Amino acid sequence: MSPSPRTIGIHLFDDVEELDAVGPWEVLGMWTRLWPEDGWRVTTFADEAGPVRCSKGLTIVAEHGEADRPGLDVLLYPGGQGTRSHEEDEARLTWVRDRLAEGTLMTSVCTGSLVYAAAGILRDRPATTHWGSIPRLSELDASIDVREHDRFVDDGEVITASGVSAGIDMALHLVARLAGNARASQVRRAMQYDPEPPVPNP
Amino acid sequence: MSPSPRTIGIHLFDDVEELDAVGPWEVLGMWTRLWPEDGWRVTTFADEAGPVRCSKGLTIVAEHGEADRPGLDVLLYPGGQGTRSHEEDEARLTWVRDRLAEGTLMTSVCTGSLVYAAAGILRDRPATTHWGSIPRLSELDASIDVREHDRFVDDGEVITASGVSAGIDMALHLVARLAGNARASQVRRAMQYDPEPPVPNP
Repeated sequence: MSPSPRTIGIHLFDDVEELDAVGPWEVLGMWTRLWPEDGWRVTTFADEAGPVRCSKGLTIVAEHGEADRPGLDVLLYPGGQGTRSHEEDEARLTWVRDRLAEGTLMTSVCTGSLVYAAAGILRDRPATTHWGSIPRLSELDASIDVREHDRFVDDGEVITASGVSAGIDMALHLVARLAGNARASQVRRAMQYDPEPPVPNP
Repeated sequence: MSPSPRTIGIHLFDDVEELDAVGPWEVLGMWTRLWPEDGWRVTTFADEAGPVRCSKGLTIVAEHGEADRPGLDVLLYPGGQGTRSHEEDEARLTWVRDRLAEGTLMTSVCTGSLVYAAAGILRDRPATTHWGSIPRLSELDASIDVREHDRFVDDGEVITASGVSAGIDMALHLVARLAGNARASQVRRAMQYDPEPPVPNP
């Protein structure tokens, strides 16, 4: 692992889904800001530092570009419309394989796992994605043990989450894994994460 | 109400809590982008257009400043450390009262309701806020019927939500109120909002 503090990097790109990135950002930001003694920090990076236009029109500023990105102990790859082109971007897929090879803990939200699948790093692993992309996950790699009904799947080196809002649950799990259940419970309380969806699913 | 499309404005300011703003943004952005025929749009505004530094260090770009802000059919006032100074900012409190007076539906997340309380617009109303700020809500206005255990409180002209993640539930309720339960259910499904907090509260 890197010298302290260890780094979690959230990847930003054109047409990233806003909550895929900012849900985990809130969880991880709350944790690392309120409990810096745990020795972790969270940052954002894109191909180039600066403004990134998200899927629903919000602009978020990436703190780092690839040129000045710190080493990543944990990578979080969000989803969104923007991942479609990533599936066929060989340079990007090589970059993903290189991160796993160097020992980065690979995490994804929503269609971020399709990029991991295209890169081949989900081979023979259990994994999930947004419900609407479940068939695509198998198309990209038939060896994946697709977990359609799991909120997130932790396979050790790789953690994948289902759609959009599932990044919040996955990030809380990540805090629990890296700093213990008691800390994750404190983070949950700080963000008052006692969800009560006011309408049923269709 | 304004000419179509009607406008929901999310207020951004220094040290706004990221998920207070982006949770509702995702809900409302999903709704208005996938179902534009409902006649609503969502935007962000700050005192001046441009980058805003949030509470946990993320930078989000406000689309409008006060100078070019569209009329607001709905205002969403997030919380965060940044609201502390707002409680004593008379110009801002007047601005809040003016919005209610012109018929804007007033909504808040987390400590956003403390600004509403300081402005006097929660007088004799039921309301809520982040659990850590419940005593402050009564301090600011003893006439408020404080609903400590409600996820959000809809009092007609004003809707207040509890802490941080509660903005997602409140925003789904807002979609239900403005476009019906069936639409809100579709939005819930699109963002796969089937939360499963992986750790208990402390």
